[in-house]
Amino acid sequence: MGSDGRDGNAPAASPLNPDAEFPALTDNERAALHRIGEQWTATVPGRAGRDAPMPVDPALGLAPDTRPSRLARLAPIRLFRAAPDHPGRDELVTTTPAPAPDSAAGRALVRLRRLVLGPPLASTALVRERMRKLVALPVLSSDLLSSVAYGPEAMLTVLALAGTAALGLSLPLAAALIGLMIVVGVSYRQTIPAYAHGAGSYLVASDNLGHRAGLTAGVGLMTDYILTVSVSVAAGVHTVTSAVPALAPFTVPLGLLFIGVLVAGNLRGIRAAGNLFAAPTYIFVLAIGALVAFGLADAAGRGFTPVPPPPVAAAEGLGLLLVLRAFSSGATSMTGIEAISNAVPIFRPVEWRNARTTLTWMIFMLVGLFAGLIVLFHLNGLVPRADETLLSQLARTTFPTGPWYLLVQAATALILMFAANTAFNDLPRLLFFVARDGYAPRRFLHMDDRLAFGNGILLLAGTSALIFVAFRGHTESLIPLYAVGVFLAFTLSQVGMVVHWRRHRGRHWTRKLALNAAGAVACALVLVTAAVTKFTEGAWVVVVAIPLLVLGALRIRAHYDAVRAALTPRPPGPGSSPDGDTAADRTESTDRAAATDRAAGPEAEEVPRQVRHLVVVPVLRLDLAALRALAYAASLGQPCLAVHISPDDGEADRFRAEWQAWGDHLRLEVVVSPYRAVIATLVGYLEALRALRPDVALTVVVPEIVVRRRWHRLLHGGTPRRLRRALRGRPGLVITSVPIHVTR
Amino acid sequence: MGSDGRDGNAPAASPLNPDAEFPALTDNERAALHRIGEQWTATVPGRAGRDAPMPVDPALGLAPDTRPSRLARLAPIRLFRAAPDHPGRDELVTTTPAPAPDSAAGRALVRLRRLVLGPPLASTALVRERMRKLVALPVLSSDLLSSVAYGPEAMLTVLALAGTAALGLSLPLAAALIGLMIVVGVSYRQTIPAYAHGAGSYLVASDNLGHRAGLTAGVGLMTDYILTVSVSVAAGVHTVTSAVPALAPFTVPLGLLFIGVLVAGNLRGIRAAGNLFAAPTYIFVLAIGALVAFGLADAAGRGFTPVPPPPVAAAEGLGLLLVLRAFSSGATSMTGIEAISNAVPIFRPVEWRNARTTLTWMIFMLVGLFAGLIVLFHLNGLVPRADETLLSQLARTTFPTGPWYLLVQAATALILMFAANTAFNDLPRLLFFVARDGYAPRRFLHMDDRLAFGNGILLLAGTSALIFVAFRGHTESLIPLYAVGVFLAFTLSQVGMVVHWRRHRGRHWTRKLALNAAGAVACALVLVTAAVTKFTEGAWVVVVAIPLLVLGALRIRAHYDAVRAALTPRPPGPGSSPDGDTAADRTESTDRAAATDRAAGPEAEEVPRQVRHLVVVPVLRLDLAALRALAYAASLGQPCLAVHISPDDGEADRFRAEWQAWGDHLRLEVVVSPYRAVIATLVGYLEALRALRPDVALTVVVPEIVVRRRWHRLLHGGTPRRLRRALRGRPGLVITSVPIHVTR
Repeated sequence: MGSDGRDGNAPAASPLNPDAEFPALTDNERAALHRIGEQWTATVPGRAGRDAPMPVDPALGLAPDTRPSRLARLAPIRLFRAAPDHPGRDELVTTTPAPAPDSAAGRALVRLRRLVLGPPLASTALVRERMRKLVALPVLSSDLLSSVAYGPEAMLTVLALAGTAALGLSLPLAAALIGLMIVVGVSYRQTIPAYAHGAGSYLVASDNLGHRAGLTAGVGLMTDYILTVSVSVAAGVHTVTSAVPALAPFTVPLGLLFIGVLVAGNLRGIRAAGNLFAAPTYIFVLAIGALVAFGLADAAGRGFTPVPPPPVAAAEGLGLLLVLRAFSSGATSMTGIEAISNAVPIFRPVEWRNARTTLTWMIFMLVGLFAGLIVLFHLNGLVPRADETLLSQLARTTFPTGPWYLLVQAATALILMFAANTAFNDLPRLLFFVARDGYAPRRFLHMDDRLAFGNGILLLAGTSALIFVAFRGHTESLIPLYAVGVFLAFTLSQVGMVVHWRRHRGRHWTRKLALNAAGAVACALVLVTAAVTKFTEGAWVVVVAIPLLVLGALRIRAHYDAVRAALTPRPPGPGSSPDGDTAADRTESTDRAAATDRAAGPEAEEVPRQVRHLVVVPVLRLDLAALRALAYAASLGQPCLAVHISPDDGEADRFRAEWQAWGDHLRLEVVVSPYRAVIATLVGYLEALRALRPDVALTVVVPEIVVRRRWHRLLHGGTPRRLRRALRGRPGLVITSVPIHVTR
Repeated sequence: MGSDGRDGNAPAASPLNPDAEFPALTDNERAALHRIGEQWTATVPGRAGRDAPMPVDPALGLAPDTRPSRLARLAPIRLFRAAPDHPGRDELVTTTPAPAPDSAAGRALVRLRRLVLGPPLASTALVRERMRKLVALPVLSSDLLSSVAYGPEAMLTVLALAGTAALGLSLPLAAALIGLMIVVGVSYRQTIPAYAHGAGSYLVASDNLGHRAGLTAGVGLMTDYILTVSVSVAAGVHTVTSAVPALAPFTVPLGLLFIGVLVAGNLRGIRAAGNLFAAPTYIFVLAIGALVAFGLADAAGRGFTPVPPPPVAAAEGLGLLLVLRAFSSGATSMTGIEAISNAVPIFRPVEWRNARTTLTWMIFMLVGLFAGLIVLFHLNGLVPRADETLLSQLARTTFPTGPWYLLVQAATALILMFAANTAFNDLPRLLFFVARDGYAPRRFLHMDDRLAFGNGILLLAGTSALIFVAFRGHTESLIPLYAVGVFLAFTLSQVGMVVHWRRHRGRHWTRKLALNAAGAVACALVLVTAAVTKFTEGAWVVVVAIPLLVLGALRIRAHYDAVRAALTPRPPGPGSSPDGDTAADRTESTDRAAATDRAAGPEAEEVPRQVRHLVVVPVLRLDLAALRALAYAASLGQPCLAVHISPDDGEADRFRAEWQAWGDHLRLEVVVSPYRAVIATLVGYLEALRALRPDVALTVVVPEIVVRRRWHRLLHGGTPRRLRRALRGRPGLVITSVPIHVTR
């Protein structure tokens, strides 16, 4: 346990780095950067240059080899220390994630957060554990094995619709499902060595079938993770209310409480606690194993004569459609089978071999538990009931007295909770990869101060809680939504492997291709069955959502591509060399400029000498805020113009008199706006200035009153905010806010 | 009609000016301004000064005496013209309220708005009509006279709770109410000559009893106006559904439709249409007059023998409380009696005399209609019913066939609608006065492009629609809320007049005082009765809301006072004269500055030479947005520092290499933030710089990516927005946004 998995030479093994948020430049971009930089050489004004004296030491007076100085007594400076291993470099390191908030309430909130989530973790704390097989097995199989808590019941619930007689079909259907489990398991056994650095469906499908198929698989898996949380929590709550029926009215709040605990735990970053996670799975396997063993012993005592089930009225006829529906409901027992293939890198070397062995064990356990439970349900004549799970009924039948019943229920609830927890690990990680490829918002790259992907965790919690509440925590209603996404991902992953073998060949490739093809066909059949037979029962939601989400992901990528294209440094054109005419021609000719209609101003200039300024200060009233904005604007030493908007001539004259009283130090332009629009008039005026001279960078210096309380903002027109909103859509305008704080 | 009421020497007569939004400086403020201005004389940098050459002509090349030039072909410049009557001054006038939006949807919206609301009106279109009495009477009395459509019914509804026998009490109660009407009417007759420029309750109470009493009266009137809309619309819809019962299920949508029409009409500014407004009131008076005449004729034919009312089961005992409740419900017939006193200035001279005469006529009409209806309800044995108004029942009884019934109903519905419209005139005007005194948000001073107080209109529409929907448009449920606010305002206004007479005396002052005192006592009795007897039925809402609103108004004023104190120009202190040490001492001494702990930077400097700059550019990635921000920052010619925040050393090294590749033109400081916080680290670093040198103005130049579509914003971290929000609370930081537009 605990060997450090960081390895600079194997980026694929530790891809979850916080600096994915700060992508490096490509070589082309660097080259363009260099050429732009060459133009700067002659043009940086002396006072702005690298070696110009600074009015304040950027290193905050902190040298790496000195004790904290007298200066460091100043609280804000104490938040930084010099990087000891970079002498001579301008580098500081923060000592705390954020300065303490000013208000007492804010500080209390920070303390509460620390209490619940723990102290912040530095990026260097990102240690990747390797697990041995006996630990990896339970950690990775809780999702899969917990499925037997609801899968068989889901199948029998559908069969029971056709009356008691149909329940007998459970045995052949279970046999078919076991066959499916083995086929899919064997398929994944082949995927693992082929993608030893992680064989998730998104990766395998993207790699072999293109990014659209990869995204489809990824989105399918995401719906799977979301529903895993909803279904596992619903089944877990049902397990609890089966044992304690008095809690049944609190199904929804209980489920939300479960989800809340999972969110807190995952924001805390509980991934490291591997050993702790091993226990519930083993307890569950032992408990269900014991249940099956005792149940079979009882049945043997009766000579394996099935107890006749209580009569159930048939609500539907027993047709092929119903049987297929039952089959696809039962197939939810297989959700989570992909977990090991996603997590190959966490195994100890040789990773793929250990992972593959663990997968084999896991499939054996799944088949054993699933088969045992189905047979016992049949032998004991149990039928699904709304108020108690089948597993609970079986446990009550087998252990009528003693603590054993409660142990089975507790173990079941616990493993369901851990299964939901698996999704809280997997979905944010999957979102990270999707976001790194540009198909999801970039914020999913951000690791919060506990090194957890907080945004992904909150997204998952919000969506699954919404679905849980919408279905009032009823497991059987959620099942129809469940199978589509997961079998879509399985199918695409297996098809991807088929393509992989055709491309790469290698030893026994035809046999491997045939096995993966068999898996793909089996999964595709389940997918189609689930989508068709449960379409009206809820599967349509997923069938509609998946293409929409894929479309959305493609549009996100298109936008990021456009932004990247717009922001990529381009080598400068021939007309703008440092001694070229653009920089030299600084006459007042408006004609020439009027003819220039390309985007200009600060948005077209990458070199300082090219930027030509006019600072515009809108002044509505000559108060202190305006005076300070004027002083700031004038002190920049660039041409400066004050603009006053007036509703009528009387007010304009009054303002002009005040301006004269002040001393008429700056150029003033009064615009009378007889329609009383202030913002629109200012914007129009600035647009007109820009139309005259598109090459001038207009800096709008806006005095901004900052109030202490939120409701005070309602009392101010919000002119700076509205002006900023109106101006941000217009190219070539720079907006400067000069704040003045009102502390009362 | 239509004589221009603008008069520079009589500000009280035309107080609703758009330039109330731009208050003038006081003499003290002007003097301080002058002294601050003196300090600027030596300190404005040459390039920024008034006579420095501008890179673009602030007058947009538009001379007052030239035809639109070639330049004016540029669309943005066409929005302006030079002011012809101010040659040589820098003054432009807008020719349109706002430039046309860029998008087709935006332009369609503007066209729709123009279609519904009409073209924009210039401030000079603000013509105040004077009305002759025969026009003023109907315009100002629709609110009062329409009250007889629901007041008598409200009284009888309460009486009917005690069974059929109690209905006989309606006649003595009506007599008492008529006495009250006369007393209050005579009281207001005395108010009008005393406050000839407008005798609204807010003004009279503020003037005589202090601003708290004035605010209480004002808030009382505001609740009255809001409920006038709710009640009048409810009664109007009930009138319609009485005539056309099939419309009854659509009560709420119909009411909202009415309110919507009123909003559109008032945003259009329909005040000018005086003659049009006269018709419905006269039609209503004639229709109800005819109804009363025919009804009395019928009754005379029966020898004035009352028809026995149908038996009504008594729900409550007939006690004093019930009688008082009935009385205060009936008193809602008097709402609107204050309208003329508010509107004295719109009469032709001699204003107060014409207004007083009109008031007398109005009271006569009210008493006549009220008395006639009560008597006829009694004689015809009518009892209130949920599905049909009493007035409708009476009209059906009197005019069983023919169009007369429909005429009465239509006239009633129309006048109720016009009564609601009165509130749409009065509340925004009252809010304007309250806001001018600083007790309401300043945005209620703003006249929109149709010279209407759009914000007040929307506030009234929103609140009254909310109340209407909450009570499902049921008139009788709204009545209990109604009387409290209006009688509170009446009482305070009359008490104010009592104080007025005691202070100013004059001819017959004791008799006048006695009359107003009688009015005050009568109104106070109704107020207490209404508040107590209907407290549990809904009056508590108003009883609770009024003090809260008054408190809110006082806190708003306190905030505006604080802002004004903070923004008032103060004469500069002795230490900051232009040749003093602050401006001269420009050494690099950090020690001296560290000792300075007063607020400094741009927020303490009113003179340009005092402002000392450091421009800080946060750079997360060296892309085009960052390069342009750097170029902009460097081109200002002030000391310039780039800051990079990095999550770990690896990324820091990578960035530094990219910075070197670019050419290392500016000073770079790298801050490693091992907890991955970007915003908090930047804020902390800027705080630390400020702690070292509080006298330096830190300008943070933030590159800002502006995207075209709203949903694209979700895809960007919003760093500029979050940074701005984090920084705006900190003093002394100037924030500059350099936008880069992504057009795809």
